[in-house]
Amino acid sequence: ELFVLTYGALVAQLCKDYEKDEDVNTCLDRMGYGIGVRLIDDFLARSAVKKCRSYSETADMIAQVAFKMYLGVTPSVSCSSAAGNEFSLILDKNPLVDFVEELPAERASLCYCNLLCGVIRGALEMVHLAAEVTFLQDRLKGDAVTEIGITFLRKAED
Amino acid sequence: ELFVLTYGALVAQLCKDYEKDEDVNTCLDRMGYGIGVRLIDDFLARSAVKKCRSYSETADMIAQVAFKMYLGVTPSVSCSSAAGNEFSLILDKNPLVDFVEELPAERASLCYCNLLCGVIRGALEMVHLAAEVTFLQDRLKGDAVTEIGITFLRKAED
Repeated sequence: ELFVLTYGALVAQLCKDYEKDEDVNTCLDRMGYGIGVRLIDDFLARSAVKKCRSYSETADMIAQVAFKMYLGVTPSVSCSSAAGNEFSLILDKNPLVDFVEELPAERASLCYCNLLCGVIRGALEMVHLAAEVTFLQDRLKGDAVTEIGITFLRKAED
Repeated sequence: ELFVLTYGALVAQLCKDYEKDEDVNTCLDRMGYGIGVRLIDDFLARSAVKKCRSYSETADMIAQVAFKMYLGVTPSVSCSSAAGNEFSLILDKNPLVDFVEELPAERASLCYCNLLCGVIRGALEMVHLAAEVTFLQDRLKGDAVTEIGITFLRKAED
């Protein structure tokens, strides 16, 4: 909970600093990227996971091992493209928003948890996987679930 | 580690926002206060601790239960005044600075972990204990240990 509240303080500070929601979102994503780049070592050391052999395995690893380890929840994973490079992580419960009731009206475009997208993107890049990571649905915005979309951009290196 | 890195991003953002270390310190303390005020409910619910009957018991509770719960470390406690209202929490290891090597020369007065002082102050206030909480020593500044001083300002209400 200390983490959740500290994250809230970070988002609040950025909302003070930037008038436009888009700028806050970009900033959270960029910060997250920097965190992911550093967090990957901790993840590999603590999880002792083996190399993933497919995008599908990688997506499962993020959901079942990384989310569990750092956020204490396990999103479900679905593959959303015939090409097999687009995945969705679906969260019924998002611990990062535990203390957030709803977004204020003037912050309707804020992706409150956008840091997570950056973290995933940064961590994947460190294992040579380029990806786009964005929120597709968000319970804070009235959607039924929170959904993070991951699109792998090229073939995984071996 | 996600928390530790996110905290680092928060401090870095404040350093961008404020030129003076004192302003960053004040801001961290103020944010921490807001967090402590909310965190106390979570603490009381999860710890199921009984009411403390003395300042000394309260200081022990902060060190042995609260620090353990939220930061995974247990500082040692010493009473530093004859009046019995001043205590020191001494941390041999501070997990919040795991990724910080040293403060940059131009940030020599930064109290990197000042959020913690605010959290303690805010949480204590919610149980009707006014206190001053400050860093007395900081390993980031070359001290041998990290020491947080808590001075209780008036008699605990019953």
